[in-house]
Amino acid sequence: MANQFWLLLIISFVSVVALSSPANGLSVPFKRLPRFPRYNFQNRNRIKPLLHEYRYETKFFSQQLDHFSFADLPKFSQRYLINSDHWLGASALGPIFLYCGNEGDIEWFATNSGFIWEIAPKFGALLVFPEHRYYGESMPYGSRDEAYKNATTLSYLTTEQALADFAVFVTDLKRNLSAEASPVVLFGGSYGGMLAAWMRLKYPHIAIGALASSAPILQFEDIVPPESFYDIASNDFKRESSSCFNTIKDSWDAIIAEGQKENGLQKLAKTFHFCRVLNSTDNLSDWLDSAYSYLAMVDYPYSADFMMPLPGHAIKEVCRRIDGASGDASILDRIYAGVSVYYNYTGKVGCFELDDDPHGLDGWNWQACTEMVMPMSSSQGNSMFPTDDFNYSSYKEECWKTFRVNPRPRWVTTELGGHDIETTLKSFGSNIIFSNGLLDPWSGGSVLKNLSDTIVALVTKEGAHHLDLRPSTPQDPEWLLEQREAEIQLIQGWIQTYRLEKEAKFSVLKSSS
Amino acid sequence: MANQFWLLLIISFVSVVALSSPANGLSVPFKRLPRFPRYNFQNRNRIKPLLHEYRYETKFFSQQLDHFSFADLPKFSQRYLINSDHWLGASALGPIFLYCGNEGDIEWFATNSGFIWEIAPKFGALLVFPEHRYYGESMPYGSRDEAYKNATTLSYLTTEQALADFAVFVTDLKRNLSAEASPVVLFGGSYGGMLAAWMRLKYPHIAIGALASSAPILQFEDIVPPESFYDIASNDFKRESSSCFNTIKDSWDAIIAEGQKENGLQKLAKTFHFCRVLNSTDNLSDWLDSAYSYLAMVDYPYSADFMMPLPGHAIKEVCRRIDGASGDASILDRIYAGVSVYYNYTGKVGCFELDDDPHGLDGWNWQACTEMVMPMSSSQGNSMFPTDDFNYSSYKEECWKTFRVNPRPRWVTTELGGHDIETTLKSFGSNIIFSNGLLDPWSGGSVLKNLSDTIVALVTKEGAHHLDLRPSTPQDPEWLLEQREAEIQLIQGWIQTYRLEKEAKFSVLKSSS
Repeated sequence: MANQFWLLLIISFVSVVALSSPANGLSVPFKRLPRFPRYNFQNRNRIKPLLHEYRYETKFFSQQLDHFSFADLPKFSQRYLINSDHWLGASALGPIFLYCGNEGDIEWFATNSGFIWEIAPKFGALLVFPEHRYYGESMPYGSRDEAYKNATTLSYLTTEQALADFAVFVTDLKRNLSAEASPVVLFGGSYGGMLAAWMRLKYPHIAIGALASSAPILQFEDIVPPESFYDIASNDFKRESSSCFNTIKDSWDAIIAEGQKENGLQKLAKTFHFCRVLNSTDNLSDWLDSAYSYLAMVDYPYSADFMMPLPGHAIKEVCRRIDGASGDASILDRIYAGVSVYYNYTGKVGCFELDDDPHGLDGWNWQACTEMVMPMSSSQGNSMFPTDDFNYSSYKEECWKTFRVNPRPRWVTTELGGHDIETTLKSFGSNIIFSNGLLDPWSGGSVLKNLSDTIVALVTKEGAHHLDLRPSTPQDPEWLLEQREAEIQLIQGWIQTYRLEKEAKFSVLKSSS
Repeated sequence: MANQFWLLLIISFVSVVALSSPANGLSVPFKRLPRFPRYNFQNRNRIKPLLHEYRYETKFFSQQLDHFSFADLPKFSQRYLINSDHWLGASALGPIFLYCGNEGDIEWFATNSGFIWEIAPKFGALLVFPEHRYYGESMPYGSRDEAYKNATTLSYLTTEQALADFAVFVTDLKRNLSAEASPVVLFGGSYGGMLAAWMRLKYPHIAIGALASSAPILQFEDIVPPESFYDIASNDFKRESSSCFNTIKDSWDAIIAEGQKENGLQKLAKTFHFCRVLNSTDNLSDWLDSAYSYLAMVDYPYSADFMMPLPGHAIKEVCRRIDGASGDASILDRIYAGVSVYYNYTGKVGCFELDDDPHGLDGWNWQACTEMVMPMSSSQGNSMFPTDDFNYSSYKEECWKTFRVNPRPRWVTTELGGHDIETTLKSFGSNIIFSNGLLDPWSGGSVLKNLSDTIVALVTKEGAHHLDLRPSTPQDPEWLLEQREAEIQLIQGWIQTYRLEKEAKFSVLKSSS
């Protein structure tokens, strides 16, 4: 009886899901903000059960709000998760694995990065997961409301400050553990992977190497074509079925045409099972756009529950439903059948809600409106998404309207590099793994070839967004096992080289004393 | 007649010189602030004549006040000097030589860095000398008075901001010249040399290499012994003459004893030819301390006029006068005879003034009170300077009293490295020359051995503070010519390697198109 009560409660709770996605529902110029899988309302309720698998302590560290000025600002508490179950300890030079927290709750990233937990015993590693400032519980000014109040309070939400947070945090941690000589290895996926790579480049004295998974550090200015993201996402559908690709490509006009009819918006809301009527067809298009984008990122070879509960090879299933609808199904019926794989694979959702406050002050949108200006276009030719040319003027205007801030679109490449990265990193830099799956639309902005002996690219044809960092499963294909094994070998190599150098130095010191 | 009038005017103008030095006259805990040769009252009047030797345009560049936050702050104008007489141009990948402006007027540094001007034709290089923010004419908030008003306005005077200024400046310059592919080589001496090395480490994508002359990047925390500076300075005297060293070492007690006598301060003022009476014997001790420190830095093998007009091998001359005073000369008479070499080699100074406002808001003192915490002690054993143990508490207290700011003594090594630099730079980093002369007391905090094939140390036994960057003279000894030739060879190698890589890439692109 008690069990049945809980079951009912859970079902009723999940039956209406507010389907917000990072950029969902924003007006057109904002639609093409960089989308990374993020902790949000969709997955908020699915963290807790996962936590049982990983044990850690939650702690807080006092951080400077502005590392790069001496303005009199209040410090803030940065949350971090720590697990020392397997640590070899300071005297054995036990390594420290640091996951660079991305734009969301660190518990979500920690529990979705099973790879790190699984290899910790083998390496005798201490695990730390510092949270990114302005996300989760790491809020300046004491609360999210205060931190997100306006452009002034948000102004310290930058990548450079976050990197400095990690540097200060781990330096202090090592000192407290008398583990100054322990090597630090960085991990990160998606924006976290960008942070890991950048951290290795900017703080080579802090960490000996980085595994940067699905880290599109080249998706800035004109380094890669702005169409790459949507072209790759589209190709993920096309490779499953041309008719599926064409149906989606044709659907945008069909939606507009339907919307222009009498009661069109109402009919669309009914066809797509929205709980409420739509304000415009853009709402629907963005909702679909978002689903296809995320589907391309999480097109994993086995069923998983990262952004949403999904079957393995989810795009294949979407296309199967689009193509396989009965002969008299309209194009919109087919689209609905397909997208339901993403938004309602469990079949438990009665009707869909759009985010009530799509223009709310969102941390990632702030970052996209300041430093993370990643131009994105959807081309007429290769893309199945609505055609859209990146227009910096309207982007900038929208940022001003939303945040009262002007982007600095050239700052990231000035501060962190990107242009001609081959020449630069060939002669400067070492020990970075750029891992990518080619199904991932972000792979187009990533490093896909070896730049030197120690800056290597591990590319899998059938991989998706930071698949390698996810927990292992019995369904892992052979190529994924091989990729992870290669990563382990490389990291072992870094640590071994480091230890040999330390020991050589130590024996020189000993023999000369 | 007219000539005589001008001569008289000049003589009367120079006959009383206000002998301020960076830390001169500050109370005891501040005495050991890091002293670099700087543009100040002493040398202010000696820039103009030098300017004739070098032709450049003076321009201004609009800079962000805080590169690392999006706080709504006013931009400021950064001054830079530019000379393109010898530039090969963008299409020939003509190199850009960038001097990292230090803590003072950029014209002074530019005109004292003759080496760069002299090698420009050989390399076909464009020369740029961007000024460091908060110095010279590069004042935030429109004026020095506003910029130096308080800790809030000064808070953006940091090394990281200055490095970002250089990065943004040269990136924009290259874009405007369509010279994105031109290699940038960094130069700097003293703090400017630290900036050049750090710039290469933090912005490897911006510059292909750095000549960091007399750059004590290890003079932080406990990386090198805090006694190194004063030990080396003392040894510069001892190697000329033990009795000279001992006379100076004994003089501090003699000064205190004299000061405690009736009318002692008046008598001291008379012995040392001060224009006014001393407030305490500390004034005199600091004035002497400062002279010996600078003498050790500028103990060049030929007569020069950098900090002061001085003979070649100035310390030898100081000791000759100290040791050679007549038999009945008191210890203080001897000290006066010696120090006159530094303060009055031309013999034109009638009496000496101490700085009226030693506690004034000074840019370098601000930097020493925030990031540039370089512990300095004077040991009982090896040092001829007054014994002094670095005491962080009183240092911090003095900083608070002066600026209302708390230092962050561990920040530099966290942000820029320094600990275990061998292991770090061996596997990460390239193309840096650390040049040092062992007479220079700052050499103790510098990199004195090769760290890798391309991170090399050029050390000269008889060199002093960034001697290699100075204009060549007919008196340059052979070892100095060799050092400069080695630098030229290394820089040529960097540029050649860069060009070959660029060309290889270009031909690949051409053949694949």
